[in-house]
Amino acid sequence: MSDEQLVRPAQVSGFPEWLPEVRLVELRWLDEIRQGFERYGFCSVETPSVEALEVLLAKGETSQEVYTLRRLQAEAADDGDARLGLHFDLTVPFARYVAAHFNDLVFPLKRYQMQRVWRGERPQEGRYREFTQCDIDVINVDHVPLHFDAELPRIIHEILTGLNIPAWSININNRKVLQGFYSGLGIDDPLGVIRIADKIDKVGAAGVEKLLATRTALTPAQIRSCLDLAHIRGVDAGVTADIRRLGVTSDLLTEGLDELSFVLDELSDLPAGSVVADLSIARGLDYYTGTVYEGKFLDWPDYGSICSGGRYADLAGSFIRRHLPGIGMSIGLTRIFAKLVAEGRLSTGPSCPSDILVVIPSDARRAQAQATAAALRSRGYNVEVYHQADKLGKQIRYASRKGVPFVWFPPFEDGKPHEVKDMAGGEQVTADPATWRRP
Amino acid sequence: MSDEQLVRPAQVSGFPEWLPEVRLVELRWLDEIRQGFERYGFCSVETPSVEALEVLLAKGETSQEVYTLRRLQAEAADDGDARLGLHFDLTVPFARYVAAHFNDLVFPLKRYQMQRVWRGERPQEGRYREFTQCDIDVINVDHVPLHFDAELPRIIHEILTGLNIPAWSININNRKVLQGFYSGLGIDDPLGVIRIADKIDKVGAAGVEKLLATRTALTPAQIRSCLDLAHIRGVDAGVTADIRRLGVTSDLLTEGLDELSFVLDELSDLPAGSVVADLSIARGLDYYTGTVYEGKFLDWPDYGSICSGGRYADLAGSFIRRHLPGIGMSIGLTRIFAKLVAEGRLSTGPSCPSDILVVIPSDARRAQAQATAAALRSRGYNVEVYHQADKLGKQIRYASRKGVPFVWFPPFEDGKPHEVKDMAGGEQVTADPATWRRP
Repeated sequence: MSDEQLVRPAQVSGFPEWLPEVRLVELRWLDEIRQGFERYGFCSVETPSVEALEVLLAKGETSQEVYTLRRLQAEAADDGDARLGLHFDLTVPFARYVAAHFNDLVFPLKRYQMQRVWRGERPQEGRYREFTQCDIDVINVDHVPLHFDAELPRIIHEILTGLNIPAWSININNRKVLQGFYSGLGIDDPLGVIRIADKIDKVGAAGVEKLLATRTALTPAQIRSCLDLAHIRGVDAGVTADIRRLGVTSDLLTEGLDELSFVLDELSDLPAGSVVADLSIARGLDYYTGTVYEGKFLDWPDYGSICSGGRYADLAGSFIRRHLPGIGMSIGLTRIFAKLVAEGRLSTGPSCPSDILVVIPSDARRAQAQATAAALRSRGYNVEVYHQADKLGKQIRYASRKGVPFVWFPPFEDGKPHEVKDMAGGEQVTADPATWRRP
Repeated sequence: MSDEQLVRPAQVSGFPEWLPEVRLVELRWLDEIRQGFERYGFCSVETPSVEALEVLLAKGETSQEVYTLRRLQAEAADDGDARLGLHFDLTVPFARYVAAHFNDLVFPLKRYQMQRVWRGERPQEGRYREFTQCDIDVINVDHVPLHFDAELPRIIHEILTGLNIPAWSININNRKVLQGFYSGLGIDDPLGVIRIADKIDKVGAAGVEKLLATRTALTPAQIRSCLDLAHIRGVDAGVTADIRRLGVTSDLLTEGLDELSFVLDELSDLPAGSVVADLSIARGLDYYTGTVYEGKFLDWPDYGSICSGGRYADLAGSFIRRHLPGIGMSIGLTRIFAKLVAEGRLSTGPSCPSDILVVIPSDARRAQAQATAAALRSRGYNVEVYHQADKLGKQIRYASRKGVPFVWFPPFEDGKPHEVKDMAGGEQVTADPATWRRP
């Protein structure tokens, strides 16, 4: 402690952090997501937080969101570090990684990557400047079988179900259906229409109609057909019949409908409504070429997507002359987690991982308390020893405040037995540290 | 693939990344370190990667190593983001966190924090610009009992033992012994001498002698006593007798020797040589006030410390007017891990977490293969289905290249049994996905 001016210990906005009891839940989520990926054999990849700026900007897309680095003491003329930036997603670093290590990797490569990413955006609800993404992708040289288009949402479905979050659905579409439909309508620039159609979430059907009328050369009849398509939703292959009924045909449309049917069929064992075909979904990014995904909370339809992804023709074309198509999905961990915290929908429990707090009967008996704790730890329990021989009530209160479920009492006199108290039920029984089992 | 110029997918020096089979080991290490901390009830804290610059520089110490952030598209005049920097350790963010959330935390606070940190240094062996630190600290209002000075190295000892790394020792000293000894010698500026004595690793005893002779007003006799002290090492409380034999006395020295004896006594059950009292250890940082630690590889004595820490009088005095003494240790995960990789001393195994690869007998039997995988997954195994009905040899080779330990063959004809092949031993036996157990 000094008399100097204090520095305000403020958090920086857009950079979330949690109290220990909330962090403990986040950690459980991270474990469950990882286990969900590993259950299907996906391997872990981590890349540095930092990439060369030319790598981050290889596609030139999200340039204005990039944070660049500079050493505090750098000379003005020394811009060496200014050529480094924090990654803004996990796809660009993964593409660079695959190109850099191409000869040392086994394909098809199934990888997961759970890391923080950074974007120099103005923070708002659901948008952070630092957040954690959990990505899975399957990439292969030249060809990735269609069945992965179903396996990926199945994995994400299992994980989100396990997290027990408020109601959600994974919405599916296929870019070939959109492009094939638009081509079949005689539209010259299907990608341009997709980019406008993608705004339906924000501006509604009427807004999209107006944009198409003012920014494209589409006829009113073409616009009407586009909107008819965007209104189609369904939980099974019946949606493809609805689409065909609109009377538009093209080879690409047929291919897209076959793929969409296949994916819906493969996922038909999942609970009704958890995977929904939604023809309004476009996913703005130009690189998606087939199946696209977008997960949403049902009760918060205006909130950003909680997971998303799709199939792409080529992952690493900016870095290596190999054709590496793939398919990927990403869980927006921070976006989901922070929303639940903000809505008061996250149940928290203890603030520490301890199963047991061992009390210290007296200074003379600290060694015995430590030996008791060691015995319990060797049997797999997480055990704290209270830090000093305070009054018993104070020691128990400490366990209670931290949510430690069991308090252990070593003998207070020679010849007496150990006892353990179940903090939830309140009962206290004799016990042996060598044999006790958590009920 | 395009005909455009490719961007070189180079890693940036000082930012390590690993192939999947190496990452899998790193992940196991991270799990074991975390379990080691949780076994003693320490709670997880994570802080943002980014802090306000005034927070990072509250003590003004390592200013030249800080990376500051700037949005790529920021106006020259807009220096809002320039007031943000990446954290260079986990202590400053933890201090800010404790001050910010003081009223919501339970004390004593035992926390662990495993995160990346960044330093804008020139990379060299053992020094990275991005690396992972694993910290534990115990802090409390006004007082932290001395027994934590022994509990912390015990935890670190357990963890390092579990990681099975090349021979190491945790070296211990006590700043009160150093300061008390120097005061007892009549030296006016003990901290100044500690700062010089700390260089013994780099410049040797002769170098320290020269520095003390040229930079301080110490007499030759005082310098000789300082060097005598620095040469004392020992594995038990016998070292305190060696120190007393040097004939110097002061109250602070007595206090320091009592503490050092206590810690060595408490740890006397650990294997000989794993914890060593080493009076040459000073730990340069001014804020250590009692026990200090420094772990080293025995075979690479010039390599940086693999873990370090100590007791401090006040954690968060820059941010809050509460007296929060504490004690902490940090494992330099990247420093240890990267050294083992560089020396070829890291044993790697599979490149993926799969227990089993299920082969696809034919396209017609893919559904059966998937059902088999689902059955095995529901029983806790990590299971991949091969991606297409390739020739069997190719499917088995894929498992072999990735190090998947078991290959599962669903029936190739109706009425035949499943079979499973142990890739290590080569034997292949019939098996039932509903009951098979990994041998």
